[in-house]
Order: sequence, then C-alpha cells, then structure tokens
Amino acid sequence: MASKERIYLFDTTLRDGQQTPGVDFSVEDKIAVARMLDAFGFDYVEGGYPGANPTDTAFFAQKRTRDAAFVAFGMTKRAGVSASNDPGLAALIRAESDAICFVAKSWDYHVRVALGCTNDENLESIRASVEASVAAGKETMVDCEHFFDGYKANPEYALACARAAYEAGSRWVVLCDTNGGTQPPEIRSIVETVIAAGIPGDHLGIHAHDDTGQAVANSLAAVEAGVRQVQGTMNGIGERCGNANLITILPTLMLKPAYADRFVTGLSPDRLADITRLSHAFDELLNRAPNAQAPYVGASAFATKAGIHASAVLKEPETYEHVPPETVGNRRRVMVSDQGGKSNFIAELKRRGIAVDKADPRLDTLIALVKEREAEGYAYEGADASFELLARRTLGHVPEFFKVDGFRCMVERRFDANGQLKSVSEAVVRVTVDGETLMSVAEGHGPVNALDIALRKDLGKYQREIADLALADYKVRILNGGTEAITRVLIESFDSTGARWSTVGVSDNIIDASFQALMDSIVYKLVRNRENPAPKPD
Amino acid sequence: MASKERIYLFDTTLRDGQQTPGVDFSVEDKIAVARMLDAFGFDYVEGGYPGANPTDTAFFAQKRTRDAAFVAFGMTKRAGVSASNDPGLAALIRAESDAICFVAKSWDYHVRVALGCTNDENLESIRASVEASVAAGKETMVDCEHFFDGYKANPEYALACARAAYEAGSRWVVLCDTNGGTQPPEIRSIVETVIAAGIPGDHLGIHAHDDTGQAVANSLAAVEAGVRQVQGTMNGIGERCGNANLITILPTLMLKPAYADRFVTGLSPDRLADITRLSHAFDELLNRAPNAQAPYVGASAFATKAGIHASAVLKEPETYEHVPPETVGNRRRVMVSDQGGKSNFIAELKRRGIAVDKADPRLDTLIALVKEREAEGYAYEGADASFELLARRTLGHVPEFFKVDGFRCMVERRFDANGQLKSVSEAVVRVTVDGETLMSVAEGHGPVNALDIALRKDLGKYQREIADLALADYKVRILNGGTEAITRVLIESFDSTGARWSTVGVSDNIIDASFQALMDSIVYKLVRNRENPAPKPD
Repeated sequence: MASKERIYLFDTTLRDGQQTPGVDFSVEDKIAVARMLDAFGFDYVEGGYPGANPTDTAFFAQKRTRDAAFVAFGMTKRAGVSASNDPGLAALIRAESDAICFVAKSWDYHVRVALGCTNDENLESIRASVEASVAAGKETMVDCEHFFDGYKANPEYALACARAAYEAGSRWVVLCDTNGGTQPPEIRSIVETVIAAGIPGDHLGIHAHDDTGQAVANSLAAVEAGVRQVQGTMNGIGERCGNANLITILPTLMLKPAYADRFVTGLSPDRLADITRLSHAFDELLNRAPNAQAPYVGASAFATKAGIHASAVLKEPETYEHVPPETVGNRRRVMVSDQGGKSNFIAELKRRGIAVDKADPRLDTLIALVKEREAEGYAYEGADASFELLARRTLGHVPEFFKVDGFRCMVERRFDANGQLKSVSEAVVRVTVDGETLMSVAEGHGPVNALDIALRKDLGKYQREIADLALADYKVRILNGGTEAITRVLIESFDSTGARWSTVGVSDNIIDASFQALMDSIVYKLVRNRENPAPKPD
Repeated sequence: MASKERIYLFDTTLRDGQQTPGVDFSVEDKIAVARMLDAFGFDYVEGGYPGANPTDTAFFAQKRTRDAAFVAFGMTKRAGVSASNDPGLAALIRAESDAICFVAKSWDYHVRVALGCTNDENLESIRASVEASVAAGKETMVDCEHFFDGYKANPEYALACARAAYEAGSRWVVLCDTNGGTQPPEIRSIVETVIAAGIPGDHLGIHAHDDTGQAVANSLAAVEAGVRQVQGTMNGIGERCGNANLITILPTLMLKPAYADRFVTGLSPDRLADITRLSHAFDELLNRAPNAQAPYVGASAFATKAGIHASAVLKEPETYEHVPPETVGNRRRVMVSDQGGKSNFIAELKRRGIAVDKADPRLDTLIALVKEREAEGYAYEGADASFELLARRTLGHVPEFFKVDGFRCMVERRFDANGQLKSVSEAVVRVTVDGETLMSVAEGHGPVNALDIALRKDLGKYQREIADLALADYKVRILNGGTEAITRVLIESFDSTGARWSTVGVSDNIIDASFQALMDSIVYKLVRNRENPAPKPD
C-alpha cells in the first residue's frame, strides 16, 4: 500500500471545457460546478482565466473550493516587459486562487508566428512568470501548449521550454496534446524522453484531447510512462472532440489492476460509487441528456439486450461485466424486449418489487402482450414506467384513479389583425374523477404541449400529488413511411424527489401516441406515490 | 509502397451493432446499411445471425453485397452432435453468404458454465465447425469470445481454442475483448504471446468494446502488436458502451504516419472524403442526431470557438488541426465570422445551376440567412430542396404559385356510438390560386396526414402537376426539452420521374413545422417542373 504512487487529478471543465461549442457557464454555473468537483475530491479545480472576461474575473473574486486547490489559468508575461509590469500577470496573481496554471508556447513555430518573439524571449517569459507566481506564494504549473507537435518539429526547443518551467520552480510541467492528434505510442515515447532529460515524472502532467478518440488512452499511456498529474473534464466536454474524460479515467485508474495495483488517487475507493451521479448532475446543469453509451456511468453501460447473453448475464453477472456496476454507482439492466425470455422478465419484475411465480399463467399473458405491443411499435426497453404499469395491470391491479372521457386538440393558422400569420394551439380535456366531470382547456406551443397542459391542469383530488411532475424529454420516432406512418413517442418525466421514469405511446396519430405516454407518466407517478409514500407530507 | 502491410476492415454494425439498446434493424434497414458499407469499401460486412430470428433469416436469403465479403455469424456446432447433424450449423452454411464467422468460447469457465461441455468437446466443436464451413466453400473465421479474460484465467486453454480454429483452416482468428475491460498494454502483450505461440498476425483479428473508452486504442494496440483484421461498427454502436468505432479508426489508420507509413487498407485514400457523409447517413437511418464531438466527422471536430485560438486558426489552420478537415469530408468552422464558407456556398449553388458572383451582396444575405436559420434549428444539410428554394428566393425569384390563407387541424378523441374510444383527425385548408379561393377538407391518420391530404387536394390549375408527388419519408426530431420544445420535420418526396428531394420545417409547433416542409416540397416540385419540363406532357 505505502509503495503505491500518487496520481493527481486536475479538472479543467471550467476553463478548457468552456471552449465547448454551446457551453457558456455563468458565474453561478461555475460556482455550482466547482462545488461538485471539490466535494467529489479532485485535487485541482481550474476555474477559468481571470482578467480575460468579466465572468472569470467575478468568479475569481473569491476562492471557490474548500479542499481542492483552486487554479487560475493565464498566459506567461509578454516578451519585452518585466514580470512586475505585465498587467495580465498582475491580474492573475491578484486572483483569489491557490495555484496558477500558465499556458506557454513550446512549439518554436508558434513562438515565432503567434507570439512574434524569439525562442529565448519565450524561455525568459516562462522563467520570469513562474518565479513571480512562486514568489507570490502560489502553487505554480505550466501547460506546455502543442508540446507533442512541438517536440516532433524541434525536440530540443520543446524540452528547453519544459525545463525552463521546471527549473524556475514550477510544481508541475504539463505536456499538452493541444491538437489532439498524437497517438498513444508517441505519447509514451516522448514522455519517456522528457523524463530521461531530467524532469521527474512526479512533476509532469498530461493534457490530452479526443480528436482521434484516444484522449483516455493517451492519458493512461502518459501515466504508464511516468507522468503523475492527469488533466481532463467532466464527461469529456471541451473544444472540438473534447478533452480527456475524467469520468472515464478515474474508475479505470482506481479499479483496473493494471493501474490500481501501482497507483492511488486522492479519493477513497468508495467515492467512486458517486461518480454516476456526478456525471449526470453535470449533464443536468448543462441541460442535456446523459450519453447512454458512456463508459461506467451510461444508462447502457451495464445493459444487456435479450439475446445470446441475457440469461447467462443474469446467472453469472461477474463474468459478463468488466467491473461490478455498483462500484461506480450504476446498475445492471437486462432489457425487456420481444426476444426476452421468461427469466429476464422475472428478474426485471423482481427488481421493481413485483413478485411472480414462474408457473403463473399471467406471466405468459404478460410476455405475449409485450411481444404483441413491441410488434406494433412499442419499445419497452426505453420505457420502464410503461412496462411496469403494463406488468402491474396484467399481474395484479392498478387503480383507475381517473378517466379521460375525451379530448380535442386544435391547431389553427390564420392571419391575425395585423396581417401576420399566426398559429394557435388549443386543447380541451374532459376527465372524470370520483364521478365528478372536470373540463380543462389550455393553449400551448403546438397541440401536444396544449394537451399536456390541459391534462395536468385539473385532476381534482390528485392535482396536488402531480404538481411536481415535470417533463425532462419528449422524443418522437416515425417508424415507417410518410405522414400516415406509425409514430412512437417516448417521454421522460421527473419529480421533486429526483425520481425519473420513461413512458411510451404508439399510434398512427402523433396526438394519440403522446396522450398515451402522458397518461402513463401521470398514472405511474400516482402508483409510485402509493408504493413509496413521501416521508414528510409537509 | 509495396512493402506496406494490408489491414482488413470488418464491419459488424448489422450483427453486434444490433445489440445496441434502441436499435432494431428491419430487413430493409439491413439492405440499406449493407449497400452503404459495400459501396464505401469495407472488406467484410457481417449481416447477422441467420436462423436465429426471422429478420436475419430473410436478410440472408440472398447475397447483399457486391464487392465486400458478406458474412454470416453463428455458433459452432453443439457438443455431442456431428457437424452434419447440427441444424444451427446447417442453417448457417445454407445462408447466402461468402463467409462464416463462428463465435466460440475461449474462456474455460464459460465452456463449463454456459456450454456445459468439456474443454476438449469445445475444441472439437471449433475444429469440426471450421472444417464443415471450409468444405462448403466459405471463407471462415472464428470470434474467440472473452479471449482476453479467458487468457488471463487460463492462458493455455485460450491459446488452444485459437490454435484449434487456425489449424482447422480458419482464415481469421479474431481475439474478442467481449466485456470491454482490457487495457491497451494487456492487449498488446497478449497479442504478442498469441503470435509467438504460432498463429501469424496476418491471420489474427481484434474485436474491441468501449467499456473503458479505449476500444479505438485497443484496436490500434492490437494492430501494432501484429493483428491484421479490425472489427468494429458505424459510429461505434453496439452493446453497452459500443464496439470499436470504424469511423474513427479508419482515418487514423490512413492519415496518421504512425500507421499510414506501415499499413494500407483496401480503400483508396480519396474514399476518406466520403466518411463524414457515411457517418451522418447512418445516423439518419437510425433517426438520431449525429454526435457533434465525434472524432473526424463531428460538426465540432474542426470547430474553434472565439477565444485565444480563433484568429490564429484562420491564419494558420494547418498548425491547429491534426488533419485537414477536407480529407475526411468535414469542414473547418470558426464560430466568429466564418468567411471560409463563401466558396462552399458558391460551389453548392453552382452545383444546382444557380450562378452568383462572389461580390454579389445577395450572397452575403443568403449566408447570413442560412446561419440564422440553422441557429433556429433548420438543417439544410439534409434538406437540399429547402436550401435551393431559400437560395432562389434570396438571389433571384420564385413565383408565388399559390397562397395558403390559413388552415385548421383538429384531433378529437371521444367514445363512439358503440362505446369505443376513437380518434378523428381532420384538416381544413384555404388556398388562393389566381385570385380564386379554394377550400379543402380531409380526414387522415393524425393531424399531419390530414393536413397533407387537404393541402394537396385542390391546388386549382397546379393540381395536375403535383398529382405524382408522393412522400417517401417523414422524420421528426425534437431539438430540446419537453413538449414545448423546438421540432424539426424533414420530409423526403419523390415523383414519377424518379426525382427525390428533401425539405425541412422548424417550429415549436409540430403542425407548423410539418406545414413548412410540405409547402417547400410542393413549391420545389412546381419550380422543378419549370426548370426541367417533362419530355412528354401527355
């Protein structure tokens, strides 16, 4: 244990991750993300570039982490100006950070073309900037930009930049594959050369990009070759194809014997059980759907579709799973589908608290029903709540909480008083609850939205119960042909307890398909409330 | 040149890719995908598992590729039955394929637990199955399932399985990382051991999964270690986290000197310029949005956000891009002022017979308009006819053949006279043609279908011209969030001349979005008739 080497984790979601097209963090977003990363246990949280824009300057008005080192990013001082006279460097040093990460050119071509200074002036800027930062009491590191491409073009100069940073007192010299095209064997051999040239591996970091889909492999190849700091982002966000994904690297480092036998991180092993939640919470903050295929944390990462493996997986999961899903806070899923066998169904039902005997004829009815409906276009593997309702209705009982007697949706497009074309969508729903008929009408963005609003506007005595139901996602899939085709609607819902469930509807009429999925969502919520009563009714 | 070694590309999108949650190929889908893969130039196209389900059996009723070897997948014969008496093996051999890929257990634990036979019986099944396939004139290969995990548990037995396949005459022995958890250094060292044990690298393949985000790196590590066949899927679809992504591996093999200097594929280098289109066409078939971050082919793969790099990228793109975007059919995007787009536009317009001068200010208007509308959710890449109409309207003139004064769509769900729930969809359209107002009403399957029928019911003097217009496809994509989200509708139309065109509509109202796309389709047809008058007016 004591002989394992320490790997340091550096998160740059708030700095390099900010370069992702479509991602723009507000100060509040940055505060929330920094809090997540700090609580999770990363060693370094890079927050941005104080002085470069008002958001980052405001974010660095105070320290935003408790345990993690809070890192400000910025350029080395300009050539021809002393460190004490460079306003950019002064702003960096003034920022309320524990550490400073300088970006420095290490490709001679870029020194000439982008900085317009001499190679020696650039080395001097690196040295003077590092010294000023160290003198100000900051932990200091240098990102050697384009290091690998620079090394290929001029190895001596790239090494000289790294050495200048190290000798001036930089705690870390980070080798960056800025363009993301370097291959793992190249990373390995160049890192080995850098270490052989006198910079110890426990002062080296790796910053990889995913332009050939190998940012994770490049980071791990660098670790094998000797670096001890790994930079990356949450869910691999970042410019172009993204940065190295820390959510993937971390479990690999901590669970795979090839690394776990040799290295430790600053995290205790049980923190990993929170990594799926961390990944999804970050997507939630970005308002995007999590990637189902994501290693370790994706909804499909431990899913098996009914097929040659499904029943074997259920019997002997450990020989079909590369790590136990619960170690990363994920879970096993055996997909219900029209190819599913009886044992799949029983296992899936058991997981949902529905006990059924293998010999129960209602189980055969349920299987036949699922097959029949999947042949019509339903897809229960993506609609757990609709599956559960179907199962409960077939095997037991689901109360008829309310009855929709009918509805009407109308979309009208016409010229308004000002001669502008205008569309109006309106829905009327008639519901019976406990013998009482309730009518609701609503306008919406399109007929489905109007129907959704009208349906949830007044459910009598159940209204308070569904008040916190909200829709997270609405998907439409046309299963064949033209406008008369079969339409499948999938709806994902959530409520204030954090629960999420998915429902499905199928029809040749998109309004009907949506109505089915909306109804299932509401009824599921009511069933769920009865199965798991809220702890405090308030 | 002559000394470069050949790498063979094996696509298993239609077999292992079919295990992706949510993916269910119909026979028509499979035919379309096989055609794409064959035309692109893959060496092997694995189509599925004939005999295992009706879709795959129907798909293998005939050979579906012209140049690529068409591969049927299946199990080795059962223990205790002779090869000639095994119905599964007989079905496999009967399938209209060029090659057979057997899956064989190579982990002794699974032989015992899943097959329930002895280690020797399994070896005998491998040998006898390969011999029967070779005798039937099929190119034969064996996927050694769980090879790497099996090797770690019992190296002698895993090697014995591989050797049994090779010695019985299998052209390829494919080493599978079925659970996807093996690390690149392990892949490298185990492949080297297999080669040292007597199976030549040019008879070895690699089948990697992405459970630690390293399927691409594992495939390339295996190639470095000596294997010469790489298995993978389009866009990395597949069970759990997916299979190795051939769309990523291929450009890396062909463009990165680390590989391109040593290896060749069966593709000529210029085929790569089509890989972005191939990747997007496959997503289109799955009706899902392409991954913007995808290496090489993603919309963001060569995008730079305004920031420290943007102007440098424009000045010296080659030092900021790991490969030139046009080599993979992608393009550079700088998200500030994209001047590089102008020549693309001129080329695209020229292709459609629209001449415009580079200095024409209307061209700037068009570019601005396209950008603005794409920001709103329009996707002109997949809607050539809508793009052409927008261009003709901006640069010249499109007649107002007719005017839709308004429409009304209604969906009503109520109990009919027999107490059955019933939905009725009806649309009313009011159109002015040459000063004459025409009203049409129609019922349909859902509101969009009703609107489509009503809109095309009576266009006065144009009615005869659009009589042969038919819809081939109707797709809906929800661009964000819940039922109030922005909806994009894509419609593909065709007529009796065989022409096909695609149109797009975007709105927060699905009816409006559909209406826009339908209108564009009709108007495009009328414009087209005037540009290319039918040879026989009849």
